[in-house]
Amino acid sequence: MRPFAQTPEPPYYAVVFVSQRTPQDQGYAATAQRMVELAGLQPGFLGADSARDADGFGITVSYWASEAAIQRWKANMEHQRAQETGQSTWYAHYELRVARVERAYAGPRTPGSSD
Amino acid sequence: MRPFAQTPEPPYYAVVFVSQRTPQDQGYAATAQRMVELAGLQPGFLGADSARDADGFGITVSYWASEAAIQRWKANMEHQRAQETGQSTWYAHYELRVARVERAYAGPRTPGSSD
Repeated sequence: MRPFAQTPEPPYYAVVFVSQRTPQDQGYAATAQRMVELAGLQPGFLGADSARDADGFGITVSYWASEAAIQRWKANMEHQRAQETGQSTWYAHYELRVARVERAYAGPRTPGSSD
Repeated sequence: MRPFAQTPEPPYYAVVFVSQRTPQDQGYAATAQRMVELAGLQPGFLGADSARDADGFGITVSYWASEAAIQRWKANMEHQRAQETGQSTWYAHYELRVARVERAYAGPRTPGSSD
């Protein structure tokens, strides 16, 4: 089974990035892998989950300790260059939402347990 | 291009459901489609985005006007029956997070625009 992001007790922040990829790779796969590694080095990064289907429609959710950590990651120079190529080349459309996680639970729960 | 959820200006709520499917269908596809239709009838439902990859790892984000709307949807009887089969049959693991969306933007932005 794929590893899920392991996050602390709320509150923390989630960046929900919903995107439609363009058909061409043009360096996307390598840069995406590098951004995962680079994000993992950022203070306040808590983890991420990502899924993309065969049509190139995908959702990545990254988890952060604070809004300040999100702002620092957005401003990272290497990440900014990747964002620029995302704008020009890799994404036909995207929607980005920043949200404060207020409660969380996991499953499947065993019969009789509560959430 | 796949339609993206069209959401209003924040604040609103997002339910982020990250899941690993079990291999067998056992009615999953039909129930998932029915739940999309049923959620769309709920007061306060704003839309949803969903992606699942070839390994059965998926993310569904549904958007809601309020915490109360989320609670009503969770308590819907037909949805509760689907949740029970999800617990017993369809999901090897899942993580559910309820978050308050505080800001949102879309792209690609045209050169020179701000977010």
